[in-house]
Amino acid sequence: MKNILIASTSTLHNGSYLEYLLPELQLFFGGCSEIIFIPYARPSGISHDDYTQKVGEAFSKINIQVKGIHEFEDPITAIKNAKGIFTGGGNTFLLVSQLYKNNVIDTLERVVKTGTPYLGTSAGSNICGLTMHTTNDMPIVYPPSFRTLGFVSFNINPHYLDPIAGSTHMGETRETRINEFHHFNPQPVIGLREGSWLAVKGESIKLKGELTARIFKRNEIPYEVTPETELKDLK
Amino acid sequence: MKNILIASTSTLHNGSYLEYLLPELQLFFGGCSEIIFIPYARPSGISHDDYTQKVGEAFSKINIQVKGIHEFEDPITAIKNAKGIFTGGGNTFLLVSQLYKNNVIDTLERVVKTGTPYLGTSAGSNICGLTMHTTNDMPIVYPPSFRTLGFVSFNINPHYLDPIAGSTHMGETRETRINEFHHFNPQPVIGLREGSWLAVKGESIKLKGELTARIFKRNEIPYEVTPETELKDLK
Repeated sequence: MKNILIASTSTLHNGSYLEYLLPELQLFFGGCSEIIFIPYARPSGISHDDYTQKVGEAFSKINIQVKGIHEFEDPITAIKNAKGIFTGGGNTFLLVSQLYKNNVIDTLERVVKTGTPYLGTSAGSNICGLTMHTTNDMPIVYPPSFRTLGFVSFNINPHYLDPIAGSTHMGETRETRINEFHHFNPQPVIGLREGSWLAVKGESIKLKGELTARIFKRNEIPYEVTPETELKDLK
Repeated sequence: MKNILIASTSTLHNGSYLEYLLPELQLFFGGCSEIIFIPYARPSGISHDDYTQKVGEAFSKINIQVKGIHEFEDPITAIKNAKGIFTGGGNTFLLVSQLYKNNVIDTLERVVKTGTPYLGTSAGSNICGLTMHTTNDMPIVYPPSFRTLGFVSFNINPHYLDPIAGSTHMGETRETRINEFHHFNPQPVIGLREGSWLAVKGESIKLKGELTARIFKRNEIPYEVTPETELKDLK
């Protein structure tokens, strides 16, 4: 049975790393004394070791040990044996490239679809969708594919931003970008604002946190959904 | 001799399409009665025909006819025979995919490097750099390569945005993204603010417009350059 948290962001403004999620994570990973962390997305180019240490410090507050996937000789076996998995944010292009390069993407998909608890934040949430076509990140490396893990039957847009009233900037709004995506791709997209997450339990997918989320379907007017909305039919 | 304008944006806030550039374009394309427009980037998913019509209306003010590359049976021959070329903005992933798919990228590179006047705005400017790794766009389609035209020996970041003071949003700033790029790529990046453009004439590359631009080099502190700065040694 799938057991997945898909969070828009790791960190809220004025909060510390993972702080707002820790009460939820204590329940979610309850019973795991150690989880595996996938640091491949390397925010600001931080090293795998430094990133893993940062995550370890956050999880130590709820008495969970963290080991980086790069510390294992065989990452595939590490994923197979993991009691829980967390993929952190950073650059989605880099993350997806590394998942393919290290040949762990199929194993990761299989173990999470069959029950290993998985937490994603930001880039680690992007990859829970069908593809990474709706990431906000800069394409700093060229991945072998944009196909991702498909834990849900739609795409994720984390750090969703509403158009800024009065902005004089001429770059595209997030909504314009997702509209362009729908000219070439059929699947719905959920815009998850910072502070929101999806809780996937078996077939159920529920919006969590205090904010609404925005749903974009091809050829339809986007709309908001409220916390606790069941999203299993979004596909 | 190369003769290229690389503009951050087509349109300024409160201005009409290409309005701020028209006096410059009148000089730049002087002597061309017709140019070819490449509408592949399709902003907001606009059709090739509609996009070409919009561009034609702007260029009619300076008595230049515009024909879309999609109107020609053989786009390669069209590029070879063009008296001037304009590639408009939209989605860089889509633009680059279409340049490869229609097999025009090599011809476009060759004719512009040997003298056909070329104007790019936004996505059409991104492709003037060595690669499209520093685009701001959403990866709505998967191009066969991120390699682009290399009219200059660095990368372009159009619509450059300074960090927003007081922002509570946790997504990466533009500077953070370019810093991540430099962990994996050696070439400098120029952040071109809206209203700025580069004028390439032969070996010379000068910053134009009223604003400074921001230069990012690997392992160096970013710095500003003023209008009329010669950038031919940026590589």
